[in-house]
Amino acid sequence: MWSKLIRHTTESSRIFETYVRYACTSSLVPGEPDGPCVKTAVPGPQSKSLLGELSKVQQCGTVQLFINYDKSIGNYLVDADDNVILDTYTQISSMPLGYNHPEVLKSFSSDHNLKSLVNRPALGVFPGMDWPQKLQNLLKEVSPNLPNITPMMCGSCSNENAFKSIFIAYRRKQRGENKDFSDDEKESTVRNQPPGSPKLSILSFFGAFHGRTLGSLSTTHSKFIHKMDIPAFDWPIAHFPRYRYPLEDNVRENAEEDSKCLAEVEELMESFCKRGVPVAGVIVEPIQAEGGDNEGSPEFFRCLQKICKERGSYLLFDEVQTGGGPTGRFWCHQHFDLESPRISPKLPYRIFNTWMGDPGKLILLENILNVIKTYNLLGQVQRTGDRLRCGLLELEKEFPCYIDSTRGRGTFLAFNAATTELRDDILKRLKQKGVQTGGCGIKSIRLRPALVFQEHHADIFLDIFRQVLKETK
Amino acid sequence: MWSKLIRHTTESSRIFETYVRYACTSSLVPGEPDGPCVKTAVPGPQSKSLLGELSKVQQCGTVQLFINYDKSIGNYLVDADDNVILDTYTQISSMPLGYNHPEVLKSFSSDHNLKSLVNRPALGVFPGMDWPQKLQNLLKEVSPNLPNITPMMCGSCSNENAFKSIFIAYRRKQRGENKDFSDDEKESTVRNQPPGSPKLSILSFFGAFHGRTLGSLSTTHSKFIHKMDIPAFDWPIAHFPRYRYPLEDNVRENAEEDSKCLAEVEELMESFCKRGVPVAGVIVEPIQAEGGDNEGSPEFFRCLQKICKERGSYLLFDEVQTGGGPTGRFWCHQHFDLESPRISPKLPYRIFNTWMGDPGKLILLENILNVIKTYNLLGQVQRTGDRLRCGLLELEKEFPCYIDSTRGRGTFLAFNAATTELRDDILKRLKQKGVQTGGCGIKSIRLRPALVFQEHHADIFLDIFRQVLKETK
Repeated sequence: MWSKLIRHTTESSRIFETYVRYACTSSLVPGEPDGPCVKTAVPGPQSKSLLGELSKVQQCGTVQLFINYDKSIGNYLVDADDNVILDTYTQISSMPLGYNHPEVLKSFSSDHNLKSLVNRPALGVFPGMDWPQKLQNLLKEVSPNLPNITPMMCGSCSNENAFKSIFIAYRRKQRGENKDFSDDEKESTVRNQPPGSPKLSILSFFGAFHGRTLGSLSTTHSKFIHKMDIPAFDWPIAHFPRYRYPLEDNVRENAEEDSKCLAEVEELMESFCKRGVPVAGVIVEPIQAEGGDNEGSPEFFRCLQKICKERGSYLLFDEVQTGGGPTGRFWCHQHFDLESPRISPKLPYRIFNTWMGDPGKLILLENILNVIKTYNLLGQVQRTGDRLRCGLLELEKEFPCYIDSTRGRGTFLAFNAATTELRDDILKRLKQKGVQTGGCGIKSIRLRPALVFQEHHADIFLDIFRQVLKETK
Repeated sequence: MWSKLIRHTTESSRIFETYVRYACTSSLVPGEPDGPCVKTAVPGPQSKSLLGELSKVQQCGTVQLFINYDKSIGNYLVDADDNVILDTYTQISSMPLGYNHPEVLKSFSSDHNLKSLVNRPALGVFPGMDWPQKLQNLLKEVSPNLPNITPMMCGSCSNENAFKSIFIAYRRKQRGENKDFSDDEKESTVRNQPPGSPKLSILSFFGAFHGRTLGSLSTTHSKFIHKMDIPAFDWPIAHFPRYRYPLEDNVRENAEEDSKCLAEVEELMESFCKRGVPVAGVIVEPIQAEGGDNEGSPEFFRCLQKICKERGSYLLFDEVQTGGGPTGRFWCHQHFDLESPRISPKLPYRIFNTWMGDPGKLILLENILNVIKTYNLLGQVQRTGDRLRCGLLELEKEFPCYIDSTRGRGTFLAFNAATTELRDDILKRLKQKGVQTGGCGIKSIRLRPALVFQEHHADIFLDIFRQVLKETK
């Protein structure tokens, strides 16, 4: 039945619109099944056989399932064995509207958009005629307080280029605003030596994940396997707050935790400055995701920004997981009431690469933003988030020996299992019942559903999770 | 007239095929104009006005022209002012079939391909069912001697991950093949310290360009502006050969140049080993592109590989510009007759990121490879390359005070101007006559035409270039 619906909706957006207008208590993505449906072990025989094939050409020990992306729809993955799986993890939090959303499928139906996709330009040199307007529109939509935008291709390279912007701004201040580079600087930087390639650092936090290229990896500290055997910059690392939950019962302890971590940041800045490796910038996640969904309080972030400002360092928020709406606002840092200072490079060819982004991805983003606005998906996130959080807190009460510390904002939620083993066991049994979630940190489970994850999806998840907890021995 | 043809060909591939089969002396991309046509200054008023718009949201001092990608076709860019420009630079060498090739435009006309594009998975965790077969086919097509493939998203991150593979393999050998990580290693790497984050280096060459993220930037040494103010790893840098041309008249001098550079590589490996920062790998371009199209001889590369092998280091070829056919073979290193050893990581989550490539780009690549094979474009490259090279050598004789040192393979060609000022002036005047080229190094001009650049395009380029040289004062 529902596979017929998928066919319908990809053929006609009219059906989609009717569906949304007159049946808004139903799924925001038409054609979704009523719930998960598991026919084999997960992974099943087809996924296992495909894994054998893939392992001939690459290390693929990370692969969990092979997916039929033709059949997947909305919040539901359909795997290679035709198992229908409710997805609360969305490709490591990267599919804001789930699968095959009819508006997203329309992205390249116009000749102009198709040509923007296949004629991928070097955007820093030969941009298309509509590029300035597209970037201006994008800024208006997603970032009314920040005046500049530099598109990149992934989280790691966004961070690497943000570090570079920070180093450039920091050195410009040191050198004097409009002073030229010296010959010594020009000559030494080509040899990787100071003063042209200066001793400067980026401060990061234990538990952080900011990417895997050598600069961003030097600020990643969540798991040893990401870093083992790879040379790193010797940069300062501070502790990130670890709160006790529920927050309202641990106000004093958590405030002390903030103070301790902030004091360490100041000490490290002081000591690295004395060592001759001043801290040009601080990178931080609004919620440490990979490291265990560890939250920082608004007060923590406001104080952190103040410390940076006092010492002439720049504060950089990495919103690769939290950005785009799952916390109920478009950016998580908007919850913190921060100042918005700006830096941007003054000279060409410094923050630059061959592509500088990808017009094809911006077309997808435009359609996604349009759906978010039209259907007020940030409001949906808040409603679904409330339902999920209440359900999880109830389950905490029902199974206090198994789970605790429910936390997060919007649908960006997590909780702890009592042990790592129990966490891994829960993840596995959820999957056998048709629910995909993700682990993080040492014993946490994180939810990263799409923005079209609704109350009824939350109920399905909570029902199955209750079953799993009941069956825990 | 020709804009009509564009419309035709995007509507029907049948026209395209007929065209190619029965009119193979004409353009390989139907609908191309007969030659460049310049109506305004380049950049013209439209490009200038759009630059004003773009500069409101980003530093864009690198932008040369705004392009109408709807109208651009084959080897011809059409800019925002309707100037028709013969493109020998192809978006910094990244458009193998030029603009709006009819076969490329068909890439997403099937429902399956469109869904592969918009449902971008975390390929390391939830690949699509056709992914293993696609990677196996790709390997067969482009890399029959290398058994492994790990797709990445750009040149910088490919190099960063290649460095990581090298460091991992190097440390595995040091540690003992199947030995586990020690607790000390696990604990220290999270703090960026040895032994977990060891002191190891990648040797690179002066004049090299390998990317702009902090690891790859530490191996880039072409221009100071790329590196200024950015901290770098203190890794060894050797001189890359600088040959005299024509090669056949300077055999002894150039062989001496090879020996000198190779001796320096050995000395650096020795001294960095003594310093406690052993050279785990060497990265090199088959032809240094950004640095000035500096060639290395096959002997140079064979000796370099031998040195690496003797010292237990790995040799890494960066083919981001030379790869894909422009030298007349799919990879430039195939001209050097090298051994093909293999390394691949044994553990999961080490060479990994959220996306691990992009199925949408692989679909484009499949179509491009199909066209390359069907129309034997590597043969075309050799024919066009011969025509271009002969023409350039004739111009060298005609204008010996202005240009010299024509070099390269296939259509991957370059020559020197007498001075930097003359080079920049030639680039500018070529553009005013409707020819886009690119500068590199201190006083070189590089040609990076598409694989569909044919003899008659070469003739147009050479004619206009002769005119420009004649008008040089």
